[in-house]
Amino acid sequence: MTNKLYDTSLSLLTDLYQVTMAYGYWKSGTAEKEAVFNLYFRKNPFGGGYTIACGLSNVIGYIEQFSFSRKDLRYLRTLTGNDGQPLFEEAFIEYLAALKLSCTIDAIPEGTVVFPNEPLVRVRGPILQCQLLETPLLNLVNFESLIATKSARLRLVAESDTLLEFGLRRAQGIDGGMTASRAAYIGGCDATSNVLAGKLYDIPVRGTHAHSWVMSFDDEQQAFDTYAQVLPNNVTLLVDTYDTLDGVRLAIETGHKLRARGYRLAGIRLDSGDLAYLSIEARKLLDEAGFTDTSIVASNDLDETIITSLKQQGAKITVWGVGTKLVTAFDQPALGGVYKLAALRTGDAHKPWDYKIKLSEQAIKTSTPGIQQVRRYRDERGFLADMIFDETLNGTHQPTTMIDPLDFTKRRRFDAHAAFEDLLVPIFAAGQCVYDKPDIHAIRARVQAQLAALHPGVKRLVNPHTYPVGLERHLHDLKTALILERRGE
Amino acid sequence: MTNKLYDTSLSLLTDLYQVTMAYGYWKSGTAEKEAVFNLYFRKNPFGGGYTIACGLSNVIGYIEQFSFSRKDLRYLRTLTGNDGQPLFEEAFIEYLAALKLSCTIDAIPEGTVVFPNEPLVRVRGPILQCQLLETPLLNLVNFESLIATKSARLRLVAESDTLLEFGLRRAQGIDGGMTASRAAYIGGCDATSNVLAGKLYDIPVRGTHAHSWVMSFDDEQQAFDTYAQVLPNNVTLLVDTYDTLDGVRLAIETGHKLRARGYRLAGIRLDSGDLAYLSIEARKLLDEAGFTDTSIVASNDLDETIITSLKQQGAKITVWGVGTKLVTAFDQPALGGVYKLAALRTGDAHKPWDYKIKLSEQAIKTSTPGIQQVRRYRDERGFLADMIFDETLNGTHQPTTMIDPLDFTKRRRFDAHAAFEDLLVPIFAAGQCVYDKPDIHAIRARVQAQLAALHPGVKRLVNPHTYPVGLERHLHDLKTALILERRGE
Repeated sequence: MTNKLYDTSLSLLTDLYQVTMAYGYWKSGTAEKEAVFNLYFRKNPFGGGYTIACGLSNVIGYIEQFSFSRKDLRYLRTLTGNDGQPLFEEAFIEYLAALKLSCTIDAIPEGTVVFPNEPLVRVRGPILQCQLLETPLLNLVNFESLIATKSARLRLVAESDTLLEFGLRRAQGIDGGMTASRAAYIGGCDATSNVLAGKLYDIPVRGTHAHSWVMSFDDEQQAFDTYAQVLPNNVTLLVDTYDTLDGVRLAIETGHKLRARGYRLAGIRLDSGDLAYLSIEARKLLDEAGFTDTSIVASNDLDETIITSLKQQGAKITVWGVGTKLVTAFDQPALGGVYKLAALRTGDAHKPWDYKIKLSEQAIKTSTPGIQQVRRYRDERGFLADMIFDETLNGTHQPTTMIDPLDFTKRRRFDAHAAFEDLLVPIFAAGQCVYDKPDIHAIRARVQAQLAALHPGVKRLVNPHTYPVGLERHLHDLKTALILERRGE
Repeated sequence: MTNKLYDTSLSLLTDLYQVTMAYGYWKSGTAEKEAVFNLYFRKNPFGGGYTIACGLSNVIGYIEQFSFSRKDLRYLRTLTGNDGQPLFEEAFIEYLAALKLSCTIDAIPEGTVVFPNEPLVRVRGPILQCQLLETPLLNLVNFESLIATKSARLRLVAESDTLLEFGLRRAQGIDGGMTASRAAYIGGCDATSNVLAGKLYDIPVRGTHAHSWVMSFDDEQQAFDTYAQVLPNNVTLLVDTYDTLDGVRLAIETGHKLRARGYRLAGIRLDSGDLAYLSIEARKLLDEAGFTDTSIVASNDLDETIITSLKQQGAKITVWGVGTKLVTAFDQPALGGVYKLAALRTGDAHKPWDYKIKLSEQAIKTSTPGIQQVRRYRDERGFLADMIFDETLNGTHQPTTMIDPLDFTKRRRFDAHAAFEDLLVPIFAAGQCVYDKPDIHAIRARVQAQLAALHPGVKRLVNPHTYPVGLERHLHDLKTALILERRGE
């Protein structure tokens, strides 16, 4: 992995059925058939109007490390079926031992605003290989996109305030914490409390002290004074260990002593109680004592709804510490990304594609066939609409006509001079990485630039406007024909 | 880590404020003060009546690997305060370079049923060291206990059915998936789809094929027949790619061919639609065709509530595949464990402890002081009550009297002959591991044995009976006195 957390082989980080299917393809002689799979989700998380694509860096790291170790193979040899006999024959194990990924992968860069049904990652290559990648790619893209989106929502309500991610202790495991810190920074947080994430991902780290610091002294004043003595350039005092407003008064005392030494009281932190009331009262005390540039930091189960409410109540908080609700995406802890077969052909690249769909009683769950690309139209004010098209169906013509997703009798035509960008870019060509990875700060900046181009209605926390995403006419017609054919019409 | 996933130093997997406080203790000469911290939670998750302790194996692995690497120290040197000057002086970095953990740690073994306010882990040692461990210990114990508890709830409703964990693709990062697979198995799942978890943790793995297998063939019958041909000892056919009951009929065809070859159709899997109706109809078709021992597997966003409802509807499902809702603990994705300073003394082990509490407006958030142990009383029918006592307050006498947590005027006396077990056992003595770790299967068996000793009312999914947990009288009196003292009474 690029994140350096994992030194063991991760090639078995997949569902067993990917390996049994791989065996099936190999054994039935279809392993090398060329397939196209799309990774997409069906619904924006948190009832929101958009999603931030994230996780591609880890996907690249995963694919670059991919190869079955001897231990992996030894383990696969031990697996048995319901008759106690081995699941896999030895020649297959040897095939895996020699396997090198040769897939061609296109993806939407991290930090891009994306919408339901758009392929975030498109994997083309031998069906056996595509299949093995399904689970790890979903794992990596689902989670980071979820957290980057949550963070972007928080950034939106925090406006120009400072936003800190404090979630490690409640995160879902070590990597749940590490990956969340990365995605939270990309989505818009300014810093993390997670030191290892700071070290490995080049994210600013922040933090001062906890209740235990105060409790370890006989009195609170002594605790504050000692902290200010030893770390004078990093003083944000937690004031609610015993009585919050008394704590503020003691912090002010310490602030005067700091000042006398040429340092400043950077902030006080509230971690319990009525944050609106306490911050307003604390602000008064600080201002009266001349500490107008001392920030008030708040933490304690904050999320975008509570921050919005506190701001509406006039809370005097300018630094928000967000933990559990951000790093676990508490109100929706999973993004339901899927990975669907969309086309298949036998070996020869000159043969036509055999387009594939999966039906469902629910129209939203019927997959879309094709070698999909997303064309995003924009004008000087921002993004206009996204058209999903098939890269092979239009021949030498540019795609121009998009079907309204909610009413197929409505069409939207884009003239030949409309400005657009095709969102999927080459990441791997025949197994070789061809992508020049941006650094984390560039990805973070991209999120804000993308959000700036999005209509405010789409960014609303509640009941957002639906951004238009539709299928190009030929792709729409192909999908319709395949559905009717499958239904025996 | 014992789980072998992490080869990098994880000593910085902590919040920055732990490091700044460590610096504060070091700089102010209090780093070696002997502290006691308790890790506990305040509320059972999912509205349930119990929690399964889990995560200790990873805690031990974490502590055994603990030491700051050169890269860690180099990184800490780069951190600066708000004046651009280094946060830490070089002598502190050198102190960290030489630091070896010497803490004494007691903990409740994995797989034990535990309740709010009981210390799951008690860390005693130099306050600087205790502080650095706060965040990683919380991260590891919070998440695994959460998932083991969710899994135990699922096991309860699944009764003797087979329970499979399928969650990797929607888990919160790689470790979110790995750790969840481990904790889910401990809590009661029979197997996982996660092959790497199978390999690293010795968990049975299960899986057959996905929709893409079916879609990759021209027709469903051919897909089923080919799968049965190549993996005859592992045939559970996914029947809902196009039309579910048609799929069942085709699976039966394949089943006849398998039988002719001396193998069996192990199962069919339903992944969409009305699982109650479809499983009843599928059961009829299978039984009529003589496949009475073919299982019906179901998956699709299942959780304990949906499984309960399906069983009440008479669904003919005997194998449950549970994914997202289990591995993310969807309805409550974090356990709010905390880690609080409970006692402190200066160097000399003969000095009396200085007991510590943290006050809060909310009584539930006021911490309990003391060197806590949990005594669980039982009779031949099962667990009776848990009494939290201080190991030093009773002198040579056994603790006998517990204060009712809801009404301090009510006391419960246990006679000297009552059977009990003290739940915290030694894990580390002065930095050395003294614990003989049970294997994962023994931990899993412990969960079921523990649950069997718990009153059914406590195990109810909804509105469970509250299991009695109280403070021993002397500890209760100490806590009361400290609160009154702090409040200036």
